[in-house]
Amino acid sequence: MDSLFTPISHVGEFGLIDRMKAVLGSGTGNAALIASIGDDAAVYRVDDDTAHVITTDALVEGVHFDRSFMPWPHLGAKAISVNVSDVAAMNAVARYAVVSIGLPRNMSVEMVESLYVGMRDACARYGIDLVGGDTTASPQVVLSVTVVGEVELSRLVFRRGARPGDLVCVTGDVGGAYAGLQALLEQRRSIQEMGDSYTPDLDPYRYVIKRQLTPEARVDVIADWAKRGVRPRALVDVSDGVASEVHHLCRASGCGARIRGAALPIDPETRFVADEQMQDVDTYALFGGEDYELLFALDPGDEHLLDPTTFTVIGAFTEASEGVTLVTPEGPIVPLQPSGFVHFTDPGADQEEDPDA
Amino acid sequence: MDSLFTPISHVGEFGLIDRMKAVLGSGTGNAALIASIGDDAAVYRVDDDTAHVITTDALVEGVHFDRSFMPWPHLGAKAISVNVSDVAAMNAVARYAVVSIGLPRNMSVEMVESLYVGMRDACARYGIDLVGGDTTASPQVVLSVTVVGEVELSRLVFRRGARPGDLVCVTGDVGGAYAGLQALLEQRRSIQEMGDSYTPDLDPYRYVIKRQLTPEARVDVIADWAKRGVRPRALVDVSDGVASEVHHLCRASGCGARIRGAALPIDPETRFVADEQMQDVDTYALFGGEDYELLFALDPGDEHLLDPTTFTVIGAFTEASEGVTLVTPEGPIVPLQPSGFVHFTDPGADQEEDPDA
Repeated sequence: MDSLFTPISHVGEFGLIDRMKAVLGSGTGNAALIASIGDDAAVYRVDDDTAHVITTDALVEGVHFDRSFMPWPHLGAKAISVNVSDVAAMNAVARYAVVSIGLPRNMSVEMVESLYVGMRDACARYGIDLVGGDTTASPQVVLSVTVVGEVELSRLVFRRGARPGDLVCVTGDVGGAYAGLQALLEQRRSIQEMGDSYTPDLDPYRYVIKRQLTPEARVDVIADWAKRGVRPRALVDVSDGVASEVHHLCRASGCGARIRGAALPIDPETRFVADEQMQDVDTYALFGGEDYELLFALDPGDEHLLDPTTFTVIGAFTEASEGVTLVTPEGPIVPLQPSGFVHFTDPGADQEEDPDA
Repeated sequence: MDSLFTPISHVGEFGLIDRMKAVLGSGTGNAALIASIGDDAAVYRVDDDTAHVITTDALVEGVHFDRSFMPWPHLGAKAISVNVSDVAAMNAVARYAVVSIGLPRNMSVEMVESLYVGMRDACARYGIDLVGGDTTASPQVVLSVTVVGEVELSRLVFRRGARPGDLVCVTGDVGGAYAGLQALLEQRRSIQEMGDSYTPDLDPYRYVIKRQLTPEARVDVIADWAKRGVRPRALVDVSDGVASEVHHLCRASGCGARIRGAALPIDPETRFVADEQMQDVDTYALFGGEDYELLFALDPGDEHLLDPTTFTVIGAFTEASEGVTLVTPEGPIVPLQPSGFVHFTDPGADQEEDPDA
């Protein structure tokens, strides 16, 4: 490894975050700061009972989305949703958003207005105010959104906090967003191959394409938990895939986990796409990413307090020494790798933890 | 004008902000929200006496900086400073920062660490904590920073609030950052023309290059005002040039202003560069941008309360009907155009308010 130029792909996104933490050190010692880099959002106290959380996430053209199949209003909405999802992952309620937008010359004022409309409508659905914006020229579209949320200190949930014996739970279904991406890519291949003679039929993929283009943060679940007075022990949102997020909870909590593949909640449309693509649907569900569901650790004694239609138990946390394992639908128990959607990989590499692969 | 594709250059950055305001409308009606889009930062109440302010600003490679003469630590520091400056422009104190970083493949881990070091050192100087980060692949370097600050409600200052008769004041000196950019560009031209036979001599440009590469937000002035119990009537930071910012205060306050060109505080090094370039130094001072000084409206009765070494009176606010004018050093009074640094212009156009020029 060249010590003067270490490619970013050699350490990956999480390696960069670790280096950032190392460089930043302990900061100012501000007593109001409760949590910093390393969870879904940072947390700082604003009064005796209340904390604010803050998170930022960017969508970059050519990296996170393709203009040819991402309508502008959907893109605007998604940029808001992925950040609101990070706020939800602290068990907090989103309040304010600011957005920094990079705009290339090939965008029109009308396209920018469509982006704004998408952001406005998403903000309205989540009950938040878009209070600030910076627009700048840029070679491609960049949407960098920051969201501030609010939470009672007593209701805060971190990634740490899971204990052996806790249930591993996930809301909604998983793998759909990835299936939607596959469906869109397949349509594009068909258009490229057949040209004008091809008539797209997206009807069989309606749900999964919606999962890919307009994911919704699960603020409904957060509100329901508050109403029921239930608080999970640990919480993360599923942006990088179930397997990666289980590893995040385990690493932060000092636990292992055993996931039952057969228990993964998968929509029939997701199965249909995987079958069409002759791929394993469990791979979609475990490594697909971008579902923006909530993955959480639940005290088994609290299970009866939750609405059973909102979540699925997919396994249990264990002692750290047992590692993170998957009980495959066929029976054997295998190590569950964390690799989900990975930025900065070398082409062909698919293991963030094994960068030289 | 084609109504299906209106080039962004036809409306400009401020035109986009106006459209954003129009699309967003009134928002959720959240009673805690004190100020939204249109000032240097948005403001929301966190308790009976205290508000938080939030602002976001991005630096994009090829638009805001050139890698060939912007060292990575300086870039990291500048991304923090320009946001802290916006917080200062509300008379608030910066507390927390988050950063979203877009990184191209040609950046090494070492370069990224240098960026982090620059951000860390700037945060330490300003007494703020960098609490969150998002890193993503990107075709060029994008640094999008959001800063949250704190202010007593009674000490908040907006762009609105200036009254006819108030003094127009500016901290420090202006035009230096633009002079620094000219000096750097000149050095590059010389290197390109003369190649290895050219030995750069940046010594005569030390101050102005520092103004360009590592501007400092005037948090010292904000702290001094608090100590003295003085509050300006209106306030903005000088990111787009003095002329543009005077227009911002006048527009928000419903005033005019008369600026005395001879009073503009200009460093001798700035004059030296303008002379070398055979350009008018007043143009640098009025339209240069990126000085990150504070421009403010002061009740004349408060002038004696301030430290006279920290600011210069450059004019007076007037009735709106008198417009914004410049008393030129030669004597004649002319309209002062707002054009400072302008994003999104067509090549050759230099008037944001006259997009078809």
